[in-house]
Amino acid sequence: MRRALELAARGPAVGDHARVGAVVLSPDGAVLAEGWHRGAGTPHAEVDAMRQVDPAELRGATAVVTLEPCDHTGRTGPCSVALLDAGVTRVVYAVDDPGAVSHGGADRLRAAGVQVVSGVLADQAEAFLERWLLSVRLGRPWVTVKWASSLDGRAAAADGSSRWITGAAARQHVHEQRAAHDAVLVGTGTALADDPSLTARGDAGEFLADQPLPVVLGDRPLPADAALRRHPRGVVTIPGHDLEAALRSLRDRGVHSVLVEGGPTVASAVIAAGLADELLVYLAPVLLGGPRVALDDIGVGSIHGARSLRVLSTSSLGPDLLVRARPVPPRTTSPVDGAPTDRSTT
Amino acid sequence: MRRALELAARGPAVGDHARVGAVVLSPDGAVLAEGWHRGAGTPHAEVDAMRQVDPAELRGATAVVTLEPCDHTGRTGPCSVALLDAGVTRVVYAVDDPGAVSHGGADRLRAAGVQVVSGVLADQAEAFLERWLLSVRLGRPWVTVKWASSLDGRAAAADGSSRWITGAAARQHVHEQRAAHDAVLVGTGTALADDPSLTARGDAGEFLADQPLPVVLGDRPLPADAALRRHPRGVVTIPGHDLEAALRSLRDRGVHSVLVEGGPTVASAVIAAGLADELLVYLAPVLLGGPRVALDDIGVGSIHGARSLRVLSTSSLGPDLLVRARPVPPRTTSPVDGAPTDRSTT
Repeated sequence: MRRALELAARGPAVGDHARVGAVVLSPDGAVLAEGWHRGAGTPHAEVDAMRQVDPAELRGATAVVTLEPCDHTGRTGPCSVALLDAGVTRVVYAVDDPGAVSHGGADRLRAAGVQVVSGVLADQAEAFLERWLLSVRLGRPWVTVKWASSLDGRAAAADGSSRWITGAAARQHVHEQRAAHDAVLVGTGTALADDPSLTARGDAGEFLADQPLPVVLGDRPLPADAALRRHPRGVVTIPGHDLEAALRSLRDRGVHSVLVEGGPTVASAVIAAGLADELLVYLAPVLLGGPRVALDDIGVGSIHGARSLRVLSTSSLGPDLLVRARPVPPRTTSPVDGAPTDRSTT
Repeated sequence: MRRALELAARGPAVGDHARVGAVVLSPDGAVLAEGWHRGAGTPHAEVDAMRQVDPAELRGATAVVTLEPCDHTGRTGPCSVALLDAGVTRVVYAVDDPGAVSHGGADRLRAAGVQVVSGVLADQAEAFLERWLLSVRLGRPWVTVKWASSLDGRAAAADGSSRWITGAAARQHVHEQRAAHDAVLVGTGTALADDPSLTARGDAGEFLADQPLPVVLGDRPLPADAALRRHPRGVVTIPGHDLEAALRSLRDRGVHSVLVEGGPTVASAVIAAGLADELLVYLAPVLLGGPRVALDDIGVGSIHGARSLRVLSTSSLGPDLLVRARPVPPRTTSPVDGAPTDRSTT
């Protein structure tokens, strides 16, 4: 399974597919073939592996797969049937297929007499597939919210200027994050104020191989000469302010991950709605003060309602600091009875 | 000199004195004695060392001192005279005495035929003595500004509640910072809202050995039952809002370092006035949003006026993050002609 996970990582990191790896073993445990999924419309990992093996050798073989073999005909046929047809007698997998129509492969295999073992290295496979699993389970893409601010939480100075609040390394990191998400979302405020291109570019300004779908949320129209209109993926505009509906519609387009790039209104709305799965906070070593906060009201009235985060990592990007964090469920404990009045300086 | 600096560090870290160390060497370079300054009213380092040596051995000896020997009679006599009287023929020191009345020791020694070498390990000694040197040079204490905020820069939730925005390790760190400064300053807003004690306490609530002088700036009177009135050092109230005058008056009381603990109004005023020498920013892994920013207006109109910081360190304190930073001089470069309009998302 460890090897199957390595193989899974060879698949494309973005796109409308799960990254899955598979190893086919002979009855005596020798590796017959390895396979992985290369993206939507290409063979699934277990089929990719089986194709490399003499059909006679597959009789009585074991398939080790990172995801439960699918049980439906989409752009490819059901893997459960392919495994049965090949005469595989043992299937080991890590994570159950969460799909409403694609799940059931394990049941079909078991019903046909195949020995099925599930849950092997499940935590590791869950973590590897987390974005895709969440998007299938919740029917919306994985949402990463990014903002850059001064150390005191401002996205811009009082006059709105914010150019290069963070340095080159942080900006390059953002481009890599764009390439690592299926879509990038901004509000019309940011689209009109900044005229961003929302392309994923390298150090020298060159386009990276993966370009995210640019999405603009809101009602104000984009000017005809907006940089976004020249985006290689085209630009998707979603009118209104219904975040959940917008995310569902992106999921229906095959978008499994979205990088929310702001501005403050959109970022705050996403966090207030509990739709943020991960945060990337770039902190520049400057102070700005003033009214232009990177995050507005997020619906927190009292300290007991604070949105708690689990910090995954804190790293330096040139002079800037990147804090990667994830929301954790709200505290269930209520304030202690008779505790002193809330205060910060004691 | 390296050894003299080690000795200097044995002196008390707070109080109305410079921490100085000294080593006395025989003409052939053997160490005759070591000394250091133990605080106001006690012998200076070089005198402390010389006292341990047979006067006959001091003839032709070398004194290595971290600070230029003083040349005036304060609570102790001038060290320059003591060195001359002892027959020391060579004095090596690191940093010139910046005092208006106390400097001149090197000149007197040279005039009397003593060989004087200055600037040895000067950078290291300057860094070690930076708070004291600044307070003598500028006539005001060294100012450290501390605040605790959520990752999005809020000091409190919308309703003002902020109790324990940061965790136990960060709070303990603040207590140690109080003990490491001569005074702690808050505005009347914080004094009235939080009723802080501003004592320096240990893990178990016990008083630390060094207690800072608590200072309240502003016009609103402290209630008779304010916790600050029970502070072991007594409480100093400075009416008005003239920060520079307040700091000068603290310096006149022998205060060489002040920890500004807020609230936002005072912290912002100190930063806006360019009076902050170091910042301690405790960032809690929570989001709050809303109006209660940790820093208000600091007089920055455009991004080109951003207050740049040099980050000295970023460290974890339990779940919280501590960023230690120092203001750096404002950028002298102006924006590039013809640069695109300021924007954050490109």
